[in-house]
Amino acid sequence: MIITEKLSVRSDGHGDVIDVTAKVQEIVDKSKAKNGSALVFVNGSTASVSTIEYEPNLVKDLKKALDKIAPYGEDYEHHKTWGDDNGSSHVKATLLGPSTTIPFEDGKLLLGTWQQVVVIDFDTSGRQREVIVQVSGE
Amino acid sequence: MIITEKLSVRSDGHGDVIDVTAKVQEIVDKSKAKNGSALVFVNGSTASVSTIEYEPNLVKDLKKALDKIAPYGEDYEHHKTWGDDNGSSHVKATLLGPSTTIPFEDGKLLLGTWQQVVVIDFDTSGRQREVIVQVSGE
Amino acid sequence: MIITEKLSVRSDGHGDVIDVTAKVQEIVDKSKAKNGSALVFVNGSTASVSTIEYEPNLVKDLKKALDKIAPYGEDYEHHKTWGDDNGSSHVKATLLGPSTTIPFEDGKLLLGTWQQVVVIDFDTSGRQREVIVQVSGE
Repeated sequence: MIITEKLSVRSDGHGDVIDVTAKVQEIVDKSKAKNGSALVFVNGSTASVSTIEYEPNLVKDLKKALDKIAPYGEDYEHHKTWGDDNGSSHVKATLLGPSTTIPFEDGKLLLGTWQQVVVIDFDTSGRQREVIVQVSGE
Repeated sequence: MIITEKLSVRSDGHGDVIDVTAKVQEIVDKSKAKNGSALVFVNGSTASVSTIEYEPNLVKDLKKALDKIAPYGEDYEHHKTWGDDNGSSHVKATLLGPSTTIPFEDGKLLLGTWQQVVVIDFDTSGRQREVIVQVSGE
Repeated sequence: MIITEKLSVRSDGHGDVIDVTAKVQEIVDKSKAKNGSALVFVNGSTASVSTIEYEPNLVKDLKKALDKIAPYGEDYEHHKTWGDDNGSSHVKATLLGPSTTIPFEDGKLLLGTWQQVVVIDFDTSGRQREVIVQVSGE
């Protein structure tokens, strides 16, 4: 059984981290599947999906580390293509990747206690983000 | 229903980025599955799969950022093992990971407009790369 | 068919890399599935799953590169939250991500010859790590 749902999440960009764990679990609940996995995928090239211990201080640490790799405000070749300012956003998004898959058993996501599923929006302005959650199970 | 196909893609290495979106969509089409996901996996330890807005300037930006983390031409312990020169390639490949999974609905990959599925070859010479595309769906 | 198993692996932390390839292949064997994929997921926020050519020198190179991005021993905001010392561990784990999916065919993981499936433990002390292996196939 496969069900595909879309979430719309509000983001402020610039490395904003949005915890979608409860929403992903709700979709697993709704599917009534007992065993399987939830694929969480963001359909854009300036955002990523991963897991983190979701707490505000760690979010700051993550931003800082990623800004070392691809600092905002530097010159990027990509800016010449569209006149954009989000070259650093694209680089970070490709590095972290657009998808994470989480297994579940007895209808419950097998996450650690301090592990949340998050969408990280690297773009340079706030927006609504579409996130796809696909549950495959039995 | 699960179908597994292999793509052979030509790469120049050194961070070369190959857009395989159309080929992945073709395999989804061929499977006739309406709902499901495509797992794209590269079976080597010096290449990765991710998504990016595929345009030449951004490819340059990605290379530059990854070269900060693991520059080519420096000494790597790995070079002592085999007399190779691709320690930086391995580090980048592990960082980005070998696989990405993309959901589809109504037979169409749920990618963003500016989001392509790409194989990134970090090795230090050109070669043919084998890429596995596995479609699971119904 | 979906089967979900848990592995317990011993780790020394600080970027320790544990090769779980043989154990993942065993679970695929046990499932008797011929075609499908193995999702390997670590249920904690200071460890990751990826692939690498597993040899001790390359493990050193990987640690060194990741320590450039998030060095141990620096100040992290996260340390203020819990009085912990593992801010760098969390940052690295989110960057590499908690899961990797490997396709198999004829009951055999489609890995490259020099490509192993590994759990990387970034935490700052040794521990037992729980790793979930979920085989979906037919």
